[in-house]
Formats: sequence, C-alpha cells, structure tokens
Amino acid sequence: MTPDTPDPLDVTARTRLRRHAERGHHDRATIDAILDEALVCHVGFAVEGRPWVVPMLHGRDGDRLYLHGAVGNHLLRSLATGVEACATVTLIDGLVLARSAFHHSVNYRSVMVFGTPWLVDDDQEKRAALDVIVDHVLPGRADDSRPASPRELELTTVIGIPITEASAKIRTGGPVDDEEDVALGHWAGVLPLELRAGEPIPADDLADDVVLPAYLADPRRPGSGR
Amino acid sequence: MTPDTPDPLDVTARTRLRRHAERGHHDRATIDAILDEALVCHVGFAVEGRPWVVPMLHGRDGDRLYLHGAVGNHLLRSLATGVEACATVTLIDGLVLARSAFHHSVNYRSVMVFGTPWLVDDDQEKRAALDVIVDHVLPGRADDSRPASPRELELTTVIGIPITEASAKIRTGGPVDDEEDVALGHWAGVLPLELRAGEPIPADDLADDVVLPAYLADPRRPGSGR
Repeated sequence: MTPDTPDPLDVTARTRLRRHAERGHHDRATIDAILDEALVCHVGFAVEGRPWVVPMLHGRDGDRLYLHGAVGNHLLRSLATGVEACATVTLIDGLVLARSAFHHSVNYRSVMVFGTPWLVDDDQEKRAALDVIVDHVLPGRADDSRPASPRELELTTVIGIPITEASAKIRTGGPVDDEEDVALGHWAGVLPLELRAGEPIPADDLADDVVLPAYLADPRRPGSGR
Repeated sequence: MTPDTPDPLDVTARTRLRRHAERGHHDRATIDAILDEALVCHVGFAVEGRPWVVPMLHGRDGDRLYLHGAVGNHLLRSLATGVEACATVTLIDGLVLARSAFHHSVNYRSVMVFGTPWLVDDDQEKRAALDVIVDHVLPGRADDSRPASPRELELTTVIGIPITEASAKIRTGGPVDDEEDVALGHWAGVLPLELRAGEPIPADDLADDVVLPAYLADPRRPGSGR
C-alpha cells in the first residue's frame, strides 16, 4: 500500500514553518521516523469548543496514524465524531546551553499531524491497528501476547488519522552565542538526553520458567533508532 | 505568595476523572511535582477554530505556569489573545506488559492544566519568569548564564497560565491479567523507562579553562525527582 519512497507532503498554511523554516521537513521518511521513535503523542481537539490535549499511545501503518482506547472513553468518542485534531510528538535529544539565557535552546525532533480522525470499525483493520500500536510500543510484542478476544475488541475504540498534512521540525547542534558572550566564562555546550530502559521487573505472578524475551534486552528504549 | 500546603484544586467538569477515577489527583503537591519534573509541555489551543498542539518548555512559580517564545511567533501571539488553552505534561515511567494485548498499559504521570493565558508585560515578572523557565530546564543555570538584555527581553514573549483548574493522573504497578491468562507463558512485568542525560558535549568555542558545573554531573535528567 505504501510506496517505498512516498512523495513529500504538500505544504499547507498549517504545515509551512514560519519561524526557523530551515528546521522544517515535509518528507515522509523524516516524519515517519520521528512518529515511530516517539512513544507517546499528544492529541489536541475541541470538546464543546474548548481545547483538550490528551497523551495517547500511537502506532503507524504506512500513512495512517492509529490511536486507541476504551469504548467508554468520552474524549476518544469526541475524537471519533469528525472533529479536527492535531497530534504532536516530541523527542528531546538534548539541552543546549549557551552563555546567554536568551540563546538557550533544546535539540529536539517533533512532528505535528493535522487531520480529522475516522473510526476504525472494520474488525480486520482494527486488529491490525492494535498489533501496530503494541509493536510500536515494543517491537515483537504483538506476536508474544494473547490477541484481543472478540469481546475485548468490542470494548476497544480505534481511530485513525491520515498522515497527509504534517510537518517535522528538528534542531541539532551546539549553542549559537553572540560573539561578545563567548568569553564570559559560563560553560556552554549540549547535555544529551535519552529515554532509556532499566532492568525489567517481572510480574508478581510470573512463573520461574518464563524466559525474558530478547526484545527486552536492549537498554535503549526498544524501538528507538529503528 | 504560595502557601506551604496549598488547598487541593476544586474539581470541575473538565478535571473530574471519568475513567480510572482512582488514578486521579487534584492536590497541588502532586500536580506541581509532575509539572516540575516534566521537561516539556504540549499546549493545545485553537487558531481560527482549528486545533494546534505545540511543544513548549515551561516553568512554574507557585500557581503560575509560564511559557515563552519569540515575539514573532504567531502561535504564541494567538495564545496571548485570550484564547483558552490546555497544557499537558506526561512522564512515562514504564511499559506494562501483560499476557494479553488488551491489558497492556503504561505507567505514567500526567497533568492537564486548563486556563486562559495572559501576556506577562511587567518587565520584572517577565525576567523572573524567564529565570524560572531556565532553572526548570536545568536547576542552577539561571544564575550561571548572562541574563537577558533589555533588547532580548523585548524580543521574548512570556505568557502565564494560572494553575487553578488542573488534574493529575497516575498509573503505577505491574500488569493486571485475567486469571485464565496467567499460565500462558508470555513474559509479564514492567520495563522501567527514564529520561537520562549522557556525557556533556562542550561547545566548539569553549575555552579549555571553563570547568563543567556541578549541576551537569548527575546522569539523571537534572531536576527530575526534586
């Protein structure tokens, strides 16, 4: 379904970067890589005209961004009624420390996706979307867990947002100080930041003979840097 | 200005938790601790009736959440015109792996703040707010950098959001599997996640005699767990 090298997205009034336009990207490879590495997205939309921003786990299949939640979730229900949404993911790669407070910054990679979610009501697409979300959070896990029963599928709402109007914004590199500040004596540079995994904590009721799966062995957040 | 033990916030239609109400908190100590630990917040608001979610660095002073950006930033300008906003921060503490895909979850701490931002136009409050934001990102840094010049202050927009309508939501602990799934043989438990700092990278133009400050020596994200 997805071509190997999708065309760059059209730039719209919402996805044209106005400030630091040089940090903007509209090619799908850049956008997809950030969406795939980010664990959580923040989804904004209006309920009765008032803004909400809800953190949600997501997954991507080609040009579809999938979100899910409990059928009873009133925010998710609102999202599935044809309202517009903006889903934003942000990876923080480091703190950029300049000599001047003014030139402090962060290195980051972020994506905004604008679109109107649709309700995924086809059971086959719904199951595939849930696998995509589980494997997004932890690659390999969908095959190593019990799939949803028909009843569990009924209790789960899945929505999709088309990745057709989106932009990425990326800052990299060190601080950029004014020339007259360089000699001030404050330390300057970058403090790299990374989401890392600790030691897996077995469930209280885990049998002794269950082996830790290989996909849990990498101390980086599994899935990052794919 | 802030009492030592602020009263819990009133619960409103927006901050009453409907799903997993046991995960909800409205006391200021819990809300403030999450706001202070989170590096970035996602701010949602409408521009010409359409939703935006923008990642921003924040800082907190008592019951004020401060955000800042360039004067020319059109999104920040929109925010300062009396529109309603929802600022959400999310800390992911771990992946919760159950035997069933359905019972997978994440351990997290999140806060939503609802409010109408005001433009901070008093220079003294603006300077204090910028210090709060710098020290939020990296405690101790405001005193160890050159403060904004009058011109830099002019080029910076600062807005405040009152922390008066807000809620926190927290999930902790291991997976909760259905009884009949426990023997399935899939590994179950929690994979802890943490934002960690790497080795500081000095700026290219950093003089050899500038010493690394003590506040950069902690490998955890500085400021976390305060």
